[in-house]
Amino acid sequence: MNEILEKIGTKAKSAETLMAAASSATKNGALKEIAAALLENSDDIISANGKDLENADKNGMTAAMKERLMLNSERIEGIAKAVGEITALPDPVGKVTGGGALPNGLKLTKITVPLGVIAIIYESRPNVTADAAALALKSGNAVILKGGQEAINSNIAIVNIIRAAIAKTGLPEDAVSLLEDCSRETAAELMKLNKYVDVLIPRGGAGLINAVVQNSTVPVIETGAGNCHVYVDESADIEMAADIVFNAKTSRPSVCNACETLLLHKGIAETALIRIKERLDEKNVEIRGDEAVCAVIPGCTPAVDDDFYTEYSDYIIAAKVVASPDEAIAHINKYSTKHSDAIVTEDYASAEKFAQGVDSAAVYINASTRFTDGGVFGFGAEIGISTQKLHARGPVGLPELVSYKYIIRGNGQVRL
Amino acid sequence: MNEILEKIGTKAKSAETLMAAASSATKNGALKEIAAALLENSDDIISANGKDLENADKNGMTAAMKERLMLNSERIEGIAKAVGEITALPDPVGKVTGGGALPNGLKLTKITVPLGVIAIIYESRPNVTADAAALALKSGNAVILKGGQEAINSNIAIVNIIRAAIAKTGLPEDAVSLLEDCSRETAAELMKLNKYVDVLIPRGGAGLINAVVQNSTVPVIETGAGNCHVYVDESADIEMAADIVFNAKTSRPSVCNACETLLLHKGIAETALIRIKERLDEKNVEIRGDEAVCAVIPGCTPAVDDDFYTEYSDYIIAAKVVASPDEAIAHINKYSTKHSDAIVTEDYASAEKFAQGVDSAAVYINASTRFTDGGVFGFGAEIGISTQKLHARGPVGLPELVSYKYIIRGNGQVRL
Repeated sequence: MNEILEKIGTKAKSAETLMAAASSATKNGALKEIAAALLENSDDIISANGKDLENADKNGMTAAMKERLMLNSERIEGIAKAVGEITALPDPVGKVTGGGALPNGLKLTKITVPLGVIAIIYESRPNVTADAAALALKSGNAVILKGGQEAINSNIAIVNIIRAAIAKTGLPEDAVSLLEDCSRETAAELMKLNKYVDVLIPRGGAGLINAVVQNSTVPVIETGAGNCHVYVDESADIEMAADIVFNAKTSRPSVCNACETLLLHKGIAETALIRIKERLDEKNVEIRGDEAVCAVIPGCTPAVDDDFYTEYSDYIIAAKVVASPDEAIAHINKYSTKHSDAIVTEDYASAEKFAQGVDSAAVYINASTRFTDGGVFGFGAEIGISTQKLHARGPVGLPELVSYKYIIRGNGQVRL
Repeated sequence: MNEILEKIGTKAKSAETLMAAASSATKNGALKEIAAALLENSDDIISANGKDLENADKNGMTAAMKERLMLNSERIEGIAKAVGEITALPDPVGKVTGGGALPNGLKLTKITVPLGVIAIIYESRPNVTADAAALALKSGNAVILKGGQEAINSNIAIVNIIRAAIAKTGLPEDAVSLLEDCSRETAAELMKLNKYVDVLIPRGGAGLINAVVQNSTVPVIETGAGNCHVYVDESADIEMAADIVFNAKTSRPSVCNACETLLLHKGIAETALIRIKERLDEKNVEIRGDEAVCAVIPGCTPAVDDDFYTEYSDYIIAAKVVASPDEAIAHINKYSTKHSDAIVTEDYASAEKFAQGVDSAAVYINASTRFTDGGVFGFGAEIGISTQKLHARGPVGLPELVSYKYIIRGNGQVRL
């Protein structure tokens, strides 16, 4: 086995027991310490980030990606504030969620416990480093972080500051560690580190998620892939539909809860399409339609089957006409990533059928798919949006970062 | 892809939507129909089972394994009764577990939904076929069953009866299907059937579990591997310790919650060992001890490191002397399968330290490890005991066979 992983795994595992036993007060103290240290040392972070930005220039990174990578005092203040806010969230560990006395006198307690060691593989902005560390710490887990090569200097600086802050509070600094080797080979080995890692959370695009699902032997919480739909039912209020589609597609096309495919009932398709196109034209959104859509929109790009599987993350939307809510539901269940899907309708039966039949983490009636977010749902911070059905679905926050165990107290009982 | 799997997967997936929408009354009706049909057709099952027993003879199966395979009227009555009893358990689907109004007026409902299509790979007795089908049906899931070649005729007979009974109630018969090809190659392909299978539950020994963990790309709930410990603390009541060790080791050595390793505090080891050995001798249990154990027990087999990793499932127990509760906890967390572990102690601090520190599904104070069981815990039937921390831990019953989704009702909300 890779020596670096062996070392980082052993250390994380050794931090696990102390972290699981840490009180809320201790953990919140560490979070406050981290928030303060990030502010105090923001010059170091900015200077490390400068190296990443230099490398980005050398490697010809796009302006949009550089914008995501860049850290300044204001952004570091935002990161520190987000860490501080996690102190206010309820501690998910040690919650008694069931139990009672059994007929033989045994006393059963079902109680939440940390998952243990979580590994997080991500590609995003360096703020994820601090967010993920803070959520793992508050939920009593040890965490191994693996960010992208493009942010490596920023991530090293942030993790060093976090580790020093944790050490001050008596908690083990190895509760948070960064895998500095960003190669694909090491990532692949991390996915098989069952000996030390209890759960792996990939956070990123379809390529990363797929690589993890194909290769990981460690249990996984998939997050991030969002091929979301808006279905405009025959009875829809057309202005509401146009508002919702416009918002779901264009308010932030790069995120996972943005809409990628528009479905329209044949009875309203023509009128609705004309109005929706007017709105989408404001942002120059390209429509890729099936035959029925192209018949209404002159010059529309014909959609191929692959378009309906694609998360464009861009000002592009696929569009298709369907004969019924049932066909819309079947289309979504076939093509979607089970993230967020919406119906626009004034019909009660269609609304209920859609809510029941669409097999996705979040199903909306007359609202934009863009609301799927731990903060918006009122859960506080999140580490990602799960698109799987095992363990956690939708926003993954503190309550999803724990497991449970049974403690059984007896006085000598044996099983007959 | 394997054509049989493609066909069975498509059919199971097509049954999913109807199953998810089925009311409790319909599902309970189907369970009653199944229970009655198993009784009515018990001759067919016994005759099919006869073929399996003939093959078992030809293949030189041990008497103990044949005893597990054998079905008679009495056993089929037991199977039918178990299916009938599942009607009395609460329906885990459609339970609202959270939600409320968001500041923007959206109404959020968190509601339990079936997992979808569950595949179960098992090696056990043919009663698992009916149990698993009944639990999957009650939880609104479609299920693909893959039993062992040794029980194939019995399993085909049972599944045909179940499918015919389901069809009578208006539910899709493809909600329950049996993979009749028992080859390892087909099992390996089933583990990668992400397109159709939402969750895979292996139920069997360490070999099967390990094959699934290494090969499955479908999310897994590991069940069944039990390397359980009893730790006799310095302050233990020696008679209680001897009773508990005797029960945990010998009441049913082949099951996953049987004890495999005995740990003893050095301050009580000698006296406790002498008394425990007297009890274990009643069943001719072989003790494999470390040096300190062998110093007390004449003729004791010396244990090697591998012994402490082994689930003997037999009248053999590993034994080791430790210096403290901390050493016992560290040993268990290193060697155990995180199933069930017990401390025998009269000391409050040791008891609490053990309950907190041992990272297992069930941690016992002064009771036998043999109690870990969905029925004993009061949860009704179970499909297995999970030894992983993701999704389900300990007994996996109906409440663990569901996921959840968020339904969000609005009146035109868009995200700013």
